[in-house]
Amino acid sequence: MPHKVRIALDAMGGDFGPSVVIGGAELSLIRHPDIEIIVFGDRAMVEPLLAAKPVLARATKFVHTDVSVKMDDKPSQALRHGRWKSSMWLAIDAVKKGEADVAVSAGNTGALMAMARFNLKTMPGIDRPAIAALWPTLKGESIVLDVGASIGADAEHLLNLAVMGSAMARVLFDLDRPTVGLLNVGTEEVKGLEAVREAGRILREEQLPHLDYVGFVEGDDIGKGSVDVVVTEGFAGNIALKTAEGTARQMAGYLTSAMTRTWRAKLGYLFAREAFNTLRDKMDPRKSNGGVFLGLNGIVIKSHGGTDPEGFAAAVDLGYDMIRYELLAKIGETLRRHDRAAVTSQLSGASS
Amino acid sequence: MPHKVRIALDAMGGDFGPSVVIGGAELSLIRHPDIEIIVFGDRAMVEPLLAAKPVLARATKFVHTDVSVKMDDKPSQALRHGRWKSSMWLAIDAVKKGEADVAVSAGNTGALMAMARFNLKTMPGIDRPAIAALWPTLKGESIVLDVGASIGADAEHLLNLAVMGSAMARVLFDLDRPTVGLLNVGTEEVKGLEAVREAGRILREEQLPHLDYVGFVEGDDIGKGSVDVVVTEGFAGNIALKTAEGTARQMAGYLTSAMTRTWRAKLGYLFAREAFNTLRDKMDPRKSNGGVFLGLNGIVIKSHGGTDPEGFAAAVDLGYDMIRYELLAKIGETLRRHDRAAVTSQLSGASS
Repeated sequence: MPHKVRIALDAMGGDFGPSVVIGGAELSLIRHPDIEIIVFGDRAMVEPLLAAKPVLARATKFVHTDVSVKMDDKPSQALRHGRWKSSMWLAIDAVKKGEADVAVSAGNTGALMAMARFNLKTMPGIDRPAIAALWPTLKGESIVLDVGASIGADAEHLLNLAVMGSAMARVLFDLDRPTVGLLNVGTEEVKGLEAVREAGRILREEQLPHLDYVGFVEGDDIGKGSVDVVVTEGFAGNIALKTAEGTARQMAGYLTSAMTRTWRAKLGYLFAREAFNTLRDKMDPRKSNGGVFLGLNGIVIKSHGGTDPEGFAAAVDLGYDMIRYELLAKIGETLRRHDRAAVTSQLSGASS
Repeated sequence: MPHKVRIALDAMGGDFGPSVVIGGAELSLIRHPDIEIIVFGDRAMVEPLLAAKPVLARATKFVHTDVSVKMDDKPSQALRHGRWKSSMWLAIDAVKKGEADVAVSAGNTGALMAMARFNLKTMPGIDRPAIAALWPTLKGESIVLDVGASIGADAEHLLNLAVMGSAMARVLFDLDRPTVGLLNVGTEEVKGLEAVREAGRILREEQLPHLDYVGFVEGDDIGKGSVDVVVTEGFAGNIALKTAEGTARQMAGYLTSAMTRTWRAKLGYLFAREAFNTLRDKMDPRKSNGGVFLGLNGIVIKSHGGTDPEGFAAAVDLGYDMIRYELLAKIGETLRRHDRAAVTSQLSGASS
């Protein structure tokens, strides 16, 4: 291992700010003693928290700034008043300058993406960045992307999403050839958007060495865990993610009201309380934490804004794994194979 | 009331065929003694079922056909071998000929839509039909459309969906001006597809008398019941619907495994069994039954293929309500207002 994993944290993002961020950093450091942390934020709020955690403080470099991006800032506002100096910008900039390997923020998604894109720029061969979500399934976890970075996608962008998502699955799930499905609608002859069909054709033909393309999947395949990586453009992907979160909350609401309606149900609840707590954790969309920005020259993790220290630590852990197992190198490797395959298929097409 | 509500049933559709259809028809007849039923299907299977239900048999006319559409027939196959003679076609054709007011089938969606469209044609002013789903929410029910009849939508099609969906909400929820939202993604400055923005602008400007346009909604607003009618194009709508069904099943799976893991949980389950049964009903996507085909010269209801008699009866009830409260007339009424408003706004635009 070349060096410690260096993680830049925006202490001022999220609904609860530094207390969640610093609490989460400590939990993640306990699990990964080989991390180094740079925290950007307001001295008055962050230093007392660090002073109370000496182990964390020893692994942490603190950088003061009194500018922070608000949760309801529009991306353009955030760029205008937060560029060069906000805690969010400085965390991303640490990655840009090579002082950190990954940046983590619970701040607002639009602003974080705008700053990350502005500062880090997209990787060679990638036009547009994407947000990948870790999605809990009946089998474990899958990766779904794009969940909202860009609207609409041509076949080439869907292919890039497949490449980036499968690289992430190799890193996180320790798989050689993760299974990949393209999200589509079911009715046989309404075969979905032209771009989805075209991307399916190319993925079938190219037979990329680092991903196993299995075909189209439908919305209900996501929760089943039918594939490791679900690829879709950002409009449908964002709607799928939000709809699933809404449905999970709705089911949790039904559960609560069912368990408080009669004395028998209340008694049953008392006996099964521990089981219910586990269940509530599984049903809480905030617990599966961490959207990963892919396609940029550097890794940025978006933690859920309303999360607690355990949830923020999950986002930091995610950043750690991505660096330790060399996500960017793996994306680059598959992109180059894809380019070569594309060239070869064009050549063979021209000569036939 | 001019006459009884006449309902045409395809007895051969669905995973379980005539037993569910005939059982469901009986349940619905008990609730609505003013219905008349025409059943199309195979004599050998249907007649014994009817013979066992004399009350139903008296309200039912039976028409034999030995042709039926399979659950995995492609729409083109179904049209080729099932047109003019399959039970599915004949049920739709009864609506076309004015012998029935509504057709109900649990057969395959693609084939049913292809036949309905081919035979009934779209209403004046509507280019493409849509499938509307009744979606259970924390507040009750909402209507979501389109959930898969067509892929992609321009602003005009989204407007037609808003008009048709709000007419359905007036009929089913007994509202004067149902609230309507356009499904979009959240990030402020990625304002979603151009067509969605344009449709939003027109709906705001036209101020139609029969719907209350409230703006954009996100995926998690559906389950909250934030609006009565959620409008989206069919690709994202189908993915949202399937994703919600998948999430509901996933949550039910978590619940079952949590309740069987320890003896305390099992004991709790025994006490709360009744509450769990209610809950399971609420979490079962098959229970909210009935996709409604809108935009055709006649009403066709698609029941879930895997449903039971109670679920099929819910689809028949839905058809009954649509006829009793004059859905098609209400759609026509709002469409004409929309056209007038469009003409007026063009005129005022030209003169300004």
